[in-house]
Amino acid sequence: MAGSNLGTIFKISTWGESHGKGVGVIIDGCPAGLSLCETDIQKFLDRRKPGRSKFSTPRKESDTVEILSGIFEGKTTGTPISLLVRNENQRSKDYSEIAAYYRPGHADYTFDAKYGFRDYRGGGRSSGRETIGRVAAGAVASKILEELGISILTYTRSIGPVSISDERFDPNEISANPLYMPDAAAAAQAQDYLNHCIQNQDSSGGVIECVITGMPAGIGETVFDKLDANLARAVFSIGAVKGFEIGSGFDAANKKGSENNDAFTTDSDGKIAKKTNHAGGILGGMSDGDAIIFRAAVKPTPSIAQTQQTVRKDGTPIEINIAGRHDPVIVPRAAVVVESMAALTLADLLLLNMSSRMDYLTTIYTDCK
Amino acid sequence: MAGSNLGTIFKISTWGESHGKGVGVIIDGCPAGLSLCETDIQKFLDRRKPGRSKFSTPRKESDTVEILSGIFEGKTTGTPISLLVRNENQRSKDYSEIAAYYRPGHADYTFDAKYGFRDYRGGGRSSGRETIGRVAAGAVASKILEELGISILTYTRSIGPVSISDERFDPNEISANPLYMPDAAAAAQAQDYLNHCIQNQDSSGGVIECVITGMPAGIGETVFDKLDANLARAVFSIGAVKGFEIGSGFDAANKKGSENNDAFTTDSDGKIAKKTNHAGGILGGMSDGDAIIFRAAVKPTPSIAQTQQTVRKDGTPIEINIAGRHDPVIVPRAAVVVESMAALTLADLLLLNMSSRMDYLTTIYTDCK
Amino acid sequence: MAGSNLGTIFKISTWGESHGKGVGVIIDGCPAGLSLCETDIQKFLDRRKPGRSKFSTPRKESDTVEILSGIFEGKTTGTPISLLVRNENQRSKDYSEIAAYYRPGHADYTFDAKYGFRDYRGGGRSSGRETIGRVAAGAVASKILEELGISILTYTRSIGPVSISDERFDPNEISANPLYMPDAAAAAQAQDYLNHCIQNQDSSGGVIECVITGMPAGIGETVFDKLDANLARAVFSIGAVKGFEIGSGFDAANKKGSENNDAFTTDSDGKIAKKTNHAGGILGGMSDGDAIIFRAAVKPTPSIAQTQQTVRKDGTPIEINIAGRHDPVIVPRAAVVVESMAALTLADLLLLNMSSRMDYLTTIYTDCK
Amino acid sequence: MAGSNLGTIFKISTWGESHGKGVGVIIDGCPAGLSLCETDIQKFLDRRKPGRSKFSTPRKESDTVEILSGIFEGKTTGTPISLLVRNENQRSKDYSEIAAYYRPGHADYTFDAKYGFRDYRGGGRSSGRETIGRVAAGAVASKILEELGISILTYTRSIGPVSISDERFDPNEISANPLYMPDAAAAAQAQDYLNHCIQNQDSSGGVIECVITGMPAGIGETVFDKLDANLARAVFSIGAVKGFEIGSGFDAANKKGSENNDAFTTDSDGKIAKKTNHAGGILGGMSDGDAIIFRAAVKPTPSIAQTQQTVRKDGTPIEINIAGRHDPVIVPRAAVVVESMAALTLADLLLLNMSSRMDYLTTIYTDCK
Repeated sequence: MAGSNLGTIFKISTWGESHGKGVGVIIDGCPAGLSLCETDIQKFLDRRKPGRSKFSTPRKESDTVEILSGIFEGKTTGTPISLLVRNENQRSKDYSEIAAYYRPGHADYTFDAKYGFRDYRGGGRSSGRETIGRVAAGAVASKILEELGISILTYTRSIGPVSISDERFDPNEISANPLYMPDAAAAAQAQDYLNHCIQNQDSSGGVIECVITGMPAGIGETVFDKLDANLARAVFSIGAVKGFEIGSGFDAANKKGSENNDAFTTDSDGKIAKKTNHAGGILGGMSDGDAIIFRAAVKPTPSIAQTQQTVRKDGTPIEINIAGRHDPVIVPRAAVVVESMAALTLADLLLLNMSSRMDYLTTIYTDCK
Repeated sequence: MAGSNLGTIFKISTWGESHGKGVGVIIDGCPAGLSLCETDIQKFLDRRKPGRSKFSTPRKESDTVEILSGIFEGKTTGTPISLLVRNENQRSKDYSEIAAYYRPGHADYTFDAKYGFRDYRGGGRSSGRETIGRVAAGAVASKILEELGISILTYTRSIGPVSISDERFDPNEISANPLYMPDAAAAAQAQDYLNHCIQNQDSSGGVIECVITGMPAGIGETVFDKLDANLARAVFSIGAVKGFEIGSGFDAANKKGSENNDAFTTDSDGKIAKKTNHAGGILGGMSDGDAIIFRAAVKPTPSIAQTQQTVRKDGTPIEINIAGRHDPVIVPRAAVVVESMAALTLADLLLLNMSSRMDYLTTIYTDCK
Repeated sequence: MAGSNLGTIFKISTWGESHGKGVGVIIDGCPAGLSLCETDIQKFLDRRKPGRSKFSTPRKESDTVEILSGIFEGKTTGTPISLLVRNENQRSKDYSEIAAYYRPGHADYTFDAKYGFRDYRGGGRSSGRETIGRVAAGAVASKILEELGISILTYTRSIGPVSISDERFDPNEISANPLYMPDAAAAAQAQDYLNHCIQNQDSSGGVIECVITGMPAGIGETVFDKLDANLARAVFSIGAVKGFEIGSGFDAANKKGSENNDAFTTDSDGKIAKKTNHAGGILGGMSDGDAIIFRAAVKPTPSIAQTQQTVRKDGTPIEINIAGRHDPVIVPRAAVVVESMAALTLADLLLLNMSSRMDYLTTIYTDCK
Repeated sequence: MAGSNLGTIFKISTWGESHGKGVGVIIDGCPAGLSLCETDIQKFLDRRKPGRSKFSTPRKESDTVEILSGIFEGKTTGTPISLLVRNENQRSKDYSEIAAYYRPGHADYTFDAKYGFRDYRGGGRSSGRETIGRVAAGAVASKILEELGISILTYTRSIGPVSISDERFDPNEISANPLYMPDAAAAAQAQDYLNHCIQNQDSSGGVIECVITGMPAGIGETVFDKLDANLARAVFSIGAVKGFEIGSGFDAANKKGSENNDAFTTDSDGKIAKKTNHAGGILGGMSDGDAIIFRAAVKPTPSIAQTQQTVRKDGTPIEINIAGRHDPVIVPRAAVVVESMAALTLADLLLLNMSSRMDYLTTIYTDCK
């Protein structure tokens, strides 16, 4: 139970290190009969691939996925889907120096504290490459959501101090700029800010926002497997995330009940709806039929070229300069990781919810036969 | 899997509704040999008990816990610990009105959407009384932490716009005011603010902060069961929580790497430590030996006496006034719930970590025999 | 994870010791909308209640169940169902002697080896009273099966050397004799045999058989959660079970493929069926639509009045005579426990199977809305 | 949760079909610091490899394992271990005939019943090749057991009516004959029997026995995760197993308590031991320090060359002759699969047991630091 498993029905197990032979994931519990091919997954992987702009690390990896099992004649069979991405750029560089000290903001020290030693090559299991398994599985989960008419829009809300304006929000803009910001003006400003960071051998944090539409109401389990709780855990399990909020989030703490409550009403189809959405689409841990909106705060990339102070394994102080060019900001590449974690969470809870009512049970076992 | 289970080793299952016969929890996986009596648990339950100040609901419940199993001669035996709190105040009031409409900010609508109907008496399973099981189990988890020298300090950071000042921080003040704020001046100001809310038949949100000291480094599993991810999920599973952050949290998104990185150094004992703690005591999902610091944003109590607009089950609009006096703010009573969820998460991950190394295995199976 | 949890969707957590305050179970994941009252459960508990014939222990327990949560207006709500049976006969007898030595065939020694000490009063958690939680939960699972037209027939196949004859098999006979044998002649012979055992201060083992009809085909998950594997585990987890077999079972090891294979055919409705049922209703770990047939071997009650040799905790040899009258055979009372474990396994796998196909998913989320 | 996951701490996820790109397994939760190389795993895989004698299928597969992750400098790192075996012999034969009908004794019909269709090439996921993942993971679990001085001896007890004699039992004989029988005379007789089966285009069943020595006492969790229950499930999850028994097993049902009870005594070292071992090394679901002995009944290979009657998918009757040469008995090759399932079960329960006592906890977190 070293933690690389997620999900109750739609279960994934990821594996792989930065400089091992590859990375990958097994999905067990994907329903049979879903159309799936490598292109479906590759599209997602390409969104997190490095080297696509000057704002990401230039490590050269094609990140080509191979489906090893679980598909027959273009459809999932109900058996485990094994996905493999070979590492291509893991050449035997000299890591003896990095092995000897602890990089600030990285997991070097805690890995040693936990296991007594670590695979220090390129961060080992705590490398960003670990997220490839998540994204590959997230692509499959997203295909399920798509079949049910559920879609997820993920974008950069802010980079450092530069935030998008809700007035200028344009979803078409997201893929039009390298920062995935749905606001061209903010994107331009953020690029200036990042260029400034790069010049100063520094990095930046940012906020990712995710909007899910089309969710049926009632998804999420009460008490510990609330939809928001499971989203929080899934998103917080991404390396650099330091904060998570739903709907009005931290602002709700400053609000009064009369301001924060969303009055119920009916929409044009006569369906029950809410007049506002401070709840972010979740009430009592279950989807309320409204758009689900959450945000994740991402810390600045800890690998910076500036001189930093740290210690060797034995405690002796040392000044270090982390070599190579790293992502000055990981927010744009992390967006698809956040989206994948959301998709995995939703798919699992949708599948779990199928067993929540006796009438569903009799529908499947009586009417479907 | 309706979601009332939590934990991998230290597993809890809570049960009970607001107006059923009682509420409770089973703990399976508590190590044998822990001293435990009902007083240990009652102390925790008393911290969340209603009616202790004018800022909490006056519902009369003694919330007396009974240990039904798992203890022998004052010690845990390794078998399940069943804890029971009988409901005393569930008299058969007329709930026909509340059954007919959906209260804003509550789970009435989503329960109906999920299950087709709901136990509408006092909120049923989504009542705040559900947290009694969490707190009772959290008291047991806290006893384990205590044995290992780990302690948790939980308090109110802010109520509405009134926040504590770090300069005036005084832990002794926490239990000295009804709002559990470690700052007498802020507490006074917050009470004024709440009185104002009560006068206006309104309610307030707030922020709870939690500081954990004494954690060994290396606790937390990589990838999905990171310490911060599991804390996020555990805390977010509490009904009113809308945001969660660790260390510098959302502020990290505005920072540069050079500002947010914590340089490593050694402390006075020569032990590896960090010069600052923006990380909030967690690196790569594992404890780094430093204090773990997190915050949870709590929304304002949705039950307010003001007239609110909503709909009946069939969609017809209705104006409602929620009767009875409700907590104008749940933050002070929720503090012990947050602390309990943290204790449960830490205990489980500490137990899980025992199987992380071959040398631990040989220690237990060779040296201990 | 001390092992008192079972199930993935229909999850149960049992608790309680022989001489604690009571025993019980929480069911989490029972679908909403199932009619359920205490009588449904009491009927099952009464089948395992002691003192119903001279062939069972005369310990006086009414074993009255109380539903503490999860039911509203006669139906399950989807939230946890907590069931409680208070112990009535746990008077403080002197257990100091039993505390000092290890009874042959009991878990005294292994409990001490595992935990360092044990609750020695009446066997503690390893007492037969532990099965009350299983049976109470099994009664609920059986109600679900009933709704789907699935029924389970459980009976005594043999007691010691006395076995029923398939020619004389009469299901109506089962409840007509105290040994639950579907064969009056065998039942009479077995009673003679047991009287002989009682006279010699001895006990007997036996075999329980279970026949499940009405199961849809395709239930059970491939590889590790095969229907037969999960049945094996569930039944083997009952204290005295030493063997388990499905269909032709151990006989299959002596057979040739041409003898053991079941030819496929169609039944009178044109439905695909098998000409024989050596498979016991399970192929490749999934139900094949035929009757599921399994047997469990139950060891003789270890508590016998004869003088036995054993050791004290410190290893000194001692001769003991276990006082009190114990069940000379537990097979008849264990039948309902076996049936309950089967019902729990089937219900869980039926619920799990609901998420196995995309067309089920679209049925629930599109057609049912 | 389609069933390809096993274990609570030492978790495995297997994947792969007979005619897909390969088969494999991920192990998550293997303790860090275990020496492990591909040879350790290959030795196990070679024991199940086809084509080693005339009594196994001649399918040509080198079954070469590749470790993709989780090892650094010859030791496990605590992160997931991904093991891959490429299929080499999956050439595109014409399977259109086999796709159209249901082979007796196989999972063809139940797969269709569950999922609506199936990957019919060579049995797909229900092929014997699925066990490669189990054996690869079992090899790793066995390395852990070895470190603790625990060893497992697995052999063929009987083939059809030919059983070994306990008087002639010789462990050195096991690897000396192609049937893995620890009795040269029985092995010779069994080969004659199998030659006779082959001549008649028939197959045979048999019994595998497993003896585990060196287990510390107290391993196994009470109630549902009993050591014997988990062994039963693990072994019963192997395709062809139809019966499982521990110690005296089904014979215990014919015994009296005075015959079946094992008196406690002390061994030559003064350690508590049992005079006999009818219990098979397990009392109350926990290891008692004695040898653990269990047996599994394996059905005859269902693929036989004789003409068989069955139906097409639409129910029309058809006579079939299954082409190709199949294993006339799978018992010898299945022995290592049974051993692997035992090793996986023991390793997981040994790791789980580490968190069973407060003194273990303080040993690890206080003494080890």
